[in-house]
Amino acid sequence: MKQIKLGLLGLGTVGGGLVNILRTSELDLGRKLGKKLHIEKIAVRDLAKPRNVDTGAIAITDDPFSVVNDPNVDLVVELMGGTTLARDLVEQAIKNGKHIVTANKALIALYGNELFALAEKHQVQIYFEASVAGGIPIIKVLREGLAGNQIDWLAGIINGTGNYILSEMKKPDADFSKVLKDAQDLGYAEADPTYDVEGIDAAHKLTILASMAFGIELSFSRVYTEGISLITADDVRFANSFGYEIKHLGIAARTAEGYSLRVHPTLVPKTVLLADVNGVMNSVLVHGNHVGSTLYYGAGAGAGATASAVMADIIDLARGWDAPYEMHVPALGYHADQLEHNANILNIDQIDTAFYLRFLVKDHPGVLARLSQTLADYDISIEHLHQDPMPEGDLALVVMTTNVVREARLNQAMAVLEGLDDLEGKITKIRVSDF
Amino acid sequence: MKQIKLGLLGLGTVGGGLVNILRTSELDLGRKLGKKLHIEKIAVRDLAKPRNVDTGAIAITDDPFSVVNDPNVDLVVELMGGTTLARDLVEQAIKNGKHIVTANKALIALYGNELFALAEKHQVQIYFEASVAGGIPIIKVLREGLAGNQIDWLAGIINGTGNYILSEMKKPDADFSKVLKDAQDLGYAEADPTYDVEGIDAAHKLTILASMAFGIELSFSRVYTEGISLITADDVRFANSFGYEIKHLGIAARTAEGYSLRVHPTLVPKTVLLADVNGVMNSVLVHGNHVGSTLYYGAGAGAGATASAVMADIIDLARGWDAPYEMHVPALGYHADQLEHNANILNIDQIDTAFYLRFLVKDHPGVLARLSQTLADYDISIEHLHQDPMPEGDLALVVMTTNVVREARLNQAMAVLEGLDDLEGKITKIRVSDF
Repeated sequence: MKQIKLGLLGLGTVGGGLVNILRTSELDLGRKLGKKLHIEKIAVRDLAKPRNVDTGAIAITDDPFSVVNDPNVDLVVELMGGTTLARDLVEQAIKNGKHIVTANKALIALYGNELFALAEKHQVQIYFEASVAGGIPIIKVLREGLAGNQIDWLAGIINGTGNYILSEMKKPDADFSKVLKDAQDLGYAEADPTYDVEGIDAAHKLTILASMAFGIELSFSRVYTEGISLITADDVRFANSFGYEIKHLGIAARTAEGYSLRVHPTLVPKTVLLADVNGVMNSVLVHGNHVGSTLYYGAGAGAGATASAVMADIIDLARGWDAPYEMHVPALGYHADQLEHNANILNIDQIDTAFYLRFLVKDHPGVLARLSQTLADYDISIEHLHQDPMPEGDLALVVMTTNVVREARLNQAMAVLEGLDDLEGKITKIRVSDF
Repeated sequence: MKQIKLGLLGLGTVGGGLVNILRTSELDLGRKLGKKLHIEKIAVRDLAKPRNVDTGAIAITDDPFSVVNDPNVDLVVELMGGTTLARDLVEQAIKNGKHIVTANKALIALYGNELFALAEKHQVQIYFEASVAGGIPIIKVLREGLAGNQIDWLAGIINGTGNYILSEMKKPDADFSKVLKDAQDLGYAEADPTYDVEGIDAAHKLTILASMAFGIELSFSRVYTEGISLITADDVRFANSFGYEIKHLGIAARTAEGYSLRVHPTLVPKTVLLADVNGVMNSVLVHGNHVGSTLYYGAGAGAGATASAVMADIIDLARGWDAPYEMHVPALGYHADQLEHNANILNIDQIDTAFYLRFLVKDHPGVLARLSQTLADYDISIEHLHQDPMPEGDLALVVMTTNVVREARLNQAMAVLEGLDDLEGKITKIRVSDF
């Protein structure tokens, strides 16, 4: 039986999980593939570090280049993360004619255009199912399962940490900083939570999904990115009373004017399944012009879920191992030279959306009349409105939702409102999507 | 650019949808595939029937064998349904060396073992994404996306008509026969609703999912099948008060004693996403040993959703068109000769599950004591219980849920209960699953 030899870069949680899967016979790969998968060599950073995984007789090295340069290695599995050394290693492996499987979303989002072009030149594949939404096979769904559609839009909960924090904020007395601290204690958030909380991780993933959905080059720098650190417990509660949950979404949409690529908190109607996705789980809602709306849900992180996605890629490559390059499904669904260059990606103020607004007003007669008149001057109508007196001072908290408007117009109205004597401080705005 | 020539059998809703997709350029197939897809010939039953679809210059015939025998046709798309003529045509096409794409779940569930063996002999593929759950790419998910897992179990809402009826029964005064009549008027249910309502359609689909999940031969005759026609509005209401929704599920599970394959109404906790799937939508929950629980949701029927799935299969075949047979992903995830023969499939009374029970008791002193003692004699404990007096006569309605027990034991206890003087008529039992 033919044997395919894997070289692993990294032996952390996911790498260890992968070794465990491959060293047991539970998957019955012989029956599924008619081929054997063998780990030839593993590169780690620190040979002395104690590990929970039994690597048996597999060669372990602290020289990762010895893996990508090993003529016995057929396929390199990159699970080390980062975009400097990992990039050098992946490039070297490609030049050596080795296929790549990676879980590294930053590497693909930031350097994918160059890497896919290089892979095309050397006739090898780069697969990356594990880079977005963990164990949910969303990459394969976009590339193959929904290939018979023009994708109109997609919206995903693609960062488990952020979703955990927003889910926990529904509990009484749970404000952002308290919940973040709990999440850090539980190991759901990093000591420096910036990547998750400010949406950078989600923006990496959205970059990949948008490229596949629309056949455009990876465009990380054009993704509008807004985090969840300004969301208050009040926002979560008022949104709820208006019939919404607040979710941190990555959204990619095709419009008549261009593509919209954005990551931001979003009010989602409770009637939509996405609103019921809680805790660290991930979910992506994809709308195709023929299939309509479809939804995919599962664990977005963790050793098992990520190793499941890495294995799917390895099995895909193994199944078609001896087929010529052109017979493989291209990594993004399009060959690198067929991706749209310089696609027209909209600025955030060019989108049309409904809004939730929160602000403090001085509790004087006629305040609400002046506010609503200002909005009306910009042709913005109010859908929901709620006002509460503040416990101290002569102030009231006002929250509202608007109809769908061009964001630039809402910004103009906000600037006027913030110039009025009636307002105390700035307005907080959160976008609303009814799907 | 290479051209792949399709022969269509059937030009109903789905066939028409497919023709529309292929005759527009919206999918940009040249960019995705580097190949052209061309419809060479279409077979219809009645040439004179007026149609909504513009078939342009495509040859149309009422002799379907002229399509499968046409040397110019590379790939046959079977969308006519049925298992007699369709089977003959598919067999003939395979013998002529043509790949098959079909939406025909009955054909695959009943004759798949023979057809896949024949296809292996002639080195062609039979793909059937559209046969289960419409536009949801669940076949590809099981075969490829989750291939790095041992599938522990799956549970699916895989018949839209049944799910529509159960969803509507949550409304006041909506009993089964009234809702069925409405569904028929709306076109959601057939004039003869047996296939949908009695679970036969779902059993065909479950047969396919179970075969792929466990690598066993297609085993339709071993699927336990129970319909929804005995579910009452009371059941829906009481289940709800206990924290459950009633869903008609197809369930396939791997247990220490064997495989369990079954279609029946099931109480599903409201906290599970599956419970929120309403109307004609489909959804499948799949549990892999590494990935954990993942869920897939979308339209289970309709021209667009089905055509989307058919297109995905065609694109899959087109992408790897010139690759040798062994390089293609086998249709069930395993080559026909690698499927487990005579797998140990459990009888329904060999499963362990919780139950919901409904019965009428005579309103005498000590009735509830005798009932609960009888259950206790069989080591069955009561979780929820509700009793209501009946408007007329000396009777009360009792509903309860039990702990998890072996079904054979529950049946013994039911036989004793039904022999007591206290009961009026038979006990209705519905299985409960907590996932």
